[in-house]
Amino acid sequence: MNPFAITTLPLNVEALISYVSSPQAGAINTFIGTVRELTGEKKTIYLKYEAYVPMAEKQLKKIGTEVQEKWPGTRIAIHHRIGSLAISDIAVVIAVSTPHRAASFEACRYAIERIKEIVPIWKKEHWEDGTFWVGNQQETISYEKGEPK
Amino acid sequence: MNPFAITTLPLNVEALISYVSSPQAGAINTFIGTVRELTGEKKTIYLKYEAYVPMAEKQLKKIGTEVQEKWPGTRIAIHHRIGSLAISDIAVVIAVSTPHRAASFEACRYAIERIKEIVPIWKKEHWEDGTFWVGNQQETISYEKGEPK
Repeated sequence: MNPFAITTLPLNVEALISYVSSPQAGAINTFIGTVRELTGEKKTIYLKYEAYVPMAEKQLKKIGTEVQEKWPGTRIAIHHRIGSLAISDIAVVIAVSTPHRAASFEACRYAIERIKEIVPIWKKEHWEDGTFWVGNQQETISYEKGEPK
Repeated sequence: MNPFAITTLPLNVEALISYVSSPQAGAINTFIGTVRELTGEKKTIYLKYEAYVPMAEKQLKKIGTEVQEKWPGTRIAIHHRIGSLAISDIAVVIAVSTPHRAASFEACRYAIERIKEIVPIWKKEHWEDGTFWVGNQQETISYEKGEPK
């Protein structure tokens, strides 16, 4: 399994957990990002994720290296899905194993924050009222807003 | 599915994730505790977990209630396995879903710390050199140590 992948296929949480599992691990933390129906009063119908795939995979791998440097003895895998996702679909899975539990939480949290910071993935959120929004994952830049064309 | 269970059967991570998944969730954090081979220089052959089952399940449920009070809108499930476990076997799974990611990490971390504090589960650790150890999950009390009888 490629531990740092961008894919259009449904994500397989068990496969990532198996990948990071090892006799040296006493703890595995996984973070799963799912499509939420409501954001404030806006009701989402579906999301569409787009990525610059070669750069996004390179950045996921970079995050893996950072995590292994900061928390030695860690095993990590990250998969991010792109394309159209419905409510409750899994957009991202991070699995991290460490000898002791505190590091598993810290390393996994670090990884999701770094994904939002440095991985070139954009989302287009389609709302019930017909409007939509396109932006980066930190929601600090909005490229387009309002009525769909 | 009983969301707060003690069982002798292998734990099913996907079942807990499905249980906590919901349209209101944007984040699912899972913690998986596995049997680690090495603790310092001691090599573990297998662990045996024992529990006072009715009280242990009651305490898991209490932890669930605490989590839902502290982080409203959370869904949570906790399964703990007992009996003999081999290296890399899963001893405990916690799955927590929340609308936003920060709370999923915090609530899941809280749950595993509370399990170690208040759930009556003991482990007997059998080491390669023939010695063994019996204690609580915080490893603050040791009931027996040395050569197996």
